[in-house]
Amino acid sequence: MKVLAQANSWMLAMETPMATGIMEDMMVLVLQLGLIVIAAKLGGYLFQRVLRLPEVLGELAAGMLIGPYALGHLIMLPQHGALFAAPTATMPVSTELYGIATVASIVLLFRSGLETDLSTFMQYAGVGTLVGLGGLIFSFGLGAGCAVWFGVADSWMDPGALFLGAISTATSVGISARILTEKRKIASPEGVTILAGAVLDDVLGIIILAIVVGMTRVARVGGEMSWMAIGWVAVKAMGFWLICTALGLLLARRIGSALKQFRSTEIMVTLAFGLALLVAGLFEMAGLAMIIGAYIMGLTLSRTDLAHELQTQLNGIYRILVPVFFCVMGMLVDFEAMHSLLGFGLVYSLLAVAAKVLGCGIPAWCSRFNWRGALRVGFGMLPRGEVALIVAGIGLSTGAIGPQIFGASVLMTLITTIIAPPALIESFKGPKGVRREIPHTQHEAETIELDFPSPDISDFLCDRFLRSLRREEFFVHRLPTEKLTYQARKEDAAFTITVDGPKLIVNTTAEQRYVARMMLLEEVLSLSDLLEASRQLKSLNDMGNELVDGLF
Amino acid sequence: MKVLAQANSWMLAMETPMATGIMEDMMVLVLQLGLIVIAAKLGGYLFQRVLRLPEVLGELAAGMLIGPYALGHLIMLPQHGALFAAPTATMPVSTELYGIATVASIVLLFRSGLETDLSTFMQYAGVGTLVGLGGLIFSFGLGAGCAVWFGVADSWMDPGALFLGAISTATSVGISARILTEKRKIASPEGVTILAGAVLDDVLGIIILAIVVGMTRVARVGGEMSWMAIGWVAVKAMGFWLICTALGLLLARRIGSALKQFRSTEIMVTLAFGLALLVAGLFEMAGLAMIIGAYIMGLTLSRTDLAHELQTQLNGIYRILVPVFFCVMGMLVDFEAMHSLLGFGLVYSLLAVAAKVLGCGIPAWCSRFNWRGALRVGFGMLPRGEVALIVAGIGLSTGAIGPQIFGASVLMTLITTIIAPPALIESFKGPKGVRREIPHTQHEAETIELDFPSPDISDFLCDRFLRSLRREEFFVHRLPTEKLTYQARKEDAAFTITVDGPKLIVNTTAEQRYVARMMLLEEVLSLSDLLEASRQLKSLNDMGNELVDGLF
Repeated sequence: MKVLAQANSWMLAMETPMATGIMEDMMVLVLQLGLIVIAAKLGGYLFQRVLRLPEVLGELAAGMLIGPYALGHLIMLPQHGALFAAPTATMPVSTELYGIATVASIVLLFRSGLETDLSTFMQYAGVGTLVGLGGLIFSFGLGAGCAVWFGVADSWMDPGALFLGAISTATSVGISARILTEKRKIASPEGVTILAGAVLDDVLGIIILAIVVGMTRVARVGGEMSWMAIGWVAVKAMGFWLICTALGLLLARRIGSALKQFRSTEIMVTLAFGLALLVAGLFEMAGLAMIIGAYIMGLTLSRTDLAHELQTQLNGIYRILVPVFFCVMGMLVDFEAMHSLLGFGLVYSLLAVAAKVLGCGIPAWCSRFNWRGALRVGFGMLPRGEVALIVAGIGLSTGAIGPQIFGASVLMTLITTIIAPPALIESFKGPKGVRREIPHTQHEAETIELDFPSPDISDFLCDRFLRSLRREEFFVHRLPTEKLTYQARKEDAAFTITVDGPKLIVNTTAEQRYVARMMLLEEVLSLSDLLEASRQLKSLNDMGNELVDGLF
Repeated sequence: MKVLAQANSWMLAMETPMATGIMEDMMVLVLQLGLIVIAAKLGGYLFQRVLRLPEVLGELAAGMLIGPYALGHLIMLPQHGALFAAPTATMPVSTELYGIATVASIVLLFRSGLETDLSTFMQYAGVGTLVGLGGLIFSFGLGAGCAVWFGVADSWMDPGALFLGAISTATSVGISARILTEKRKIASPEGVTILAGAVLDDVLGIIILAIVVGMTRVARVGGEMSWMAIGWVAVKAMGFWLICTALGLLLARRIGSALKQFRSTEIMVTLAFGLALLVAGLFEMAGLAMIIGAYIMGLTLSRTDLAHELQTQLNGIYRILVPVFFCVMGMLVDFEAMHSLLGFGLVYSLLAVAAKVLGCGIPAWCSRFNWRGALRVGFGMLPRGEVALIVAGIGLSTGAIGPQIFGASVLMTLITTIIAPPALIESFKGPKGVRREIPHTQHEAETIELDFPSPDISDFLCDRFLRSLRREEFFVHRLPTEKLTYQARKEDAAFTITVDGPKLIVNTTAEQRYVARMMLLEEVLSLSDLLEASRQLKSLNDMGNELVDGLF
């Protein structure tokens, strides 16, 4: 009997979880993270492939579904309680989970910075600036004004109003860019204007965030709020931003070559990512937001030849972490709180739509677009995404906005992102959107075209050309286009290599044409050697026969 | 004057960090993580490239250097205090940081499981089992005995003794495998025995961990400790392990094809990783350790054709997170505590060396190796690594071992890992290590060899063959060998494709030879078409001349 009783006590011991203290926290974190990773990916898949809606909406929706305000609260772990405990404090998820989401937001903005195409922006800086600024002013004004009008905030200087303004400013151009690429409109005047506008919009949105964070801090320490105060904070924030960006761009080449010293992409990528984290932390310490630091670090490296390589290599961590970020943002949505301000949320969302359509459309119409083109530009600038959610998250975690306003912000993100794709597709049907064609900017470019009798040969030669470029330490990347197009970069030299059926086309600048021609010549000569050798091949048919013999 | 005073108050406001509460935690986390990512990578680089020591030691050393017990305590953040606060509670780092390290340990063991080569093990199961078991028994016995002898633990049943035994069991074969690969000894009888032994060693080490965790729990709830108790816990832990592994291997194919339904490697990888996290959390909940679940999930998927693809795709997150794990483990080393038990730590380390040399060497010597070969096998099984550190971390965080014993464990990891590479290289000089050659296992294999007149042609044909394999949904991977060798897998079919100068060699099983021959035949025929086409090429020299003309 004693043995049995003992055995029984061990059984009980087996059922008592070993996890105590930190191990229990870790267990919960790992279970939450596992569920989030799976739910976010499936949500994204469902929305993108089945509902034909942007992936990010599915990730957000998955978070709303499994979060502490919904199902997560009902999933019970034995001897622990709910998987996502009912929220009590200001932050409805654990700091461990929020920490991972924060790291994800840095990855996101670092890559945004890396992807920023400053040269396209420079080419279309005129219209781009007008469109970006217009959208920004309208969005901020209508967003903050809406808060005051509904009595959500006491005045324009209220942190709540400032945050609502800031949240609605930043366009998430990724969704529009993907649609325009699919519809082959990305290089149209509207497409390029949208891209250029979005660059300015990103930058200005981040400056606005810096200003809003600064002003919220002034309000917290009891400082007096006046237009002068705003101006002063704005000047300081913008000054800091400009100095850091200028510093980054000046040091870009030096940072790039320091990283390249290691001669290992793995080390380069890891160090660059570590730098992005450090700069993000330092920005937060300096009183700006982390994502501003991460974005500037990305922008800095976007000017080096490492940019594409860093983007590719960060894919692994990006693909897993970024859906986690959107999912965790969805988890912060408190349905009850949102319900109490649903009317406000809807009006705020509609104003956010109107703000971009008018704010971006009017400057576009004033420059060189007709009403159709202006509408397209406006629709392209509609979607809000990661930056809006990060800013709202910062507002929530610093207490500047409550869960109701956070809910309204998420609703605005959802609505603008749902409306944009069909509006964009519909508006692009029909005639041209410009009143007059502007002459194409004259590039000092050189195109080398080699025409082979068979696509196999052009393919083969392309392959060998890319290999010899890699040997010369070029960074070679396939572009996400339908045709086989590669881009090779090394410092200032840049080649675009396209295989179009039997044709091999190499585009480069006038200065680089000698390099390109010499390298191509080498490959053509070695191909001719190869053909010579193949004539010595006794007979490929014999080889074929041998292979057939082996079958029996 | 009033304006100046006001401006001054804003200046002050700018200097007060905005971060409060959760935002301050996030700022510290991001700064810590940035520093860790950079320090770990630089430490690893320094050790590997400059000191010619394993990378992991550099990552550990970086953690010791920047951790809360060393420099980290001295780096001061304005208005916050030390970057790594002086440790007070049981865990010297924040739960947010420990959470990221925990996720990293899951990534590590998931990939260990994925990399497990059960088929090599099965071929050498006999010697492998003896070598693995011998090393395990000696390590556990000497480790736990050493604790009792030094009075660190009261008895063999003491959780401290059990953990010290468990920590010294698991070999980290990665380091030996890398050296053997470099020295082209991986396929030698010693090399294969080491690999097979390490598979069993991993599995048994993880079962030992389950038993130790179970017994520690019994001890905590005040259960009586006896050999019967140990036996009972062991039976339960082993039973649970076996059932889960069997279930995993049985469901492997089904899980694999469920994942493949999504037809996107990105989704497959993310879902597989999410599953690994979930299973890890469930194992912890069931009273086993998280890493056991992660390892079993990896082992399960290692049997599917997705294994290589998952390994490759997880590289991005692995490369960034795993150094963070080792660095954080280094941070947990309390030098003062370690100093007080330095003598113990050194004896423990030496016993850990002796345990593997004798425990693995004697069974090897008894089977078919001479003393030289036995020594090689023993040296190959020496290094301890991630599993030892994870087990020690679990002991520390559950309070089963104190900081002194944790320090001794890290010292043991360092010493065994430093000794192994030179010992292994030195011992492999000289004659053969087997007493008699055993006849090579007869495989029903087929080798197809095609000999071309030029390496360019074999290269070209290999490239086309790989492409057509990919089109047929094979997963194709380059093996990390010096020669160009690829492995292509799809369900049961497996081809190894090697380009050796002008020769193209395809290895496959007898059942698959028809498929291989047919596919090769198709490529050879299309090559002959291509050559036909190239004869129509007016003249490659003309093309070359055109290219030269363009230069002027």
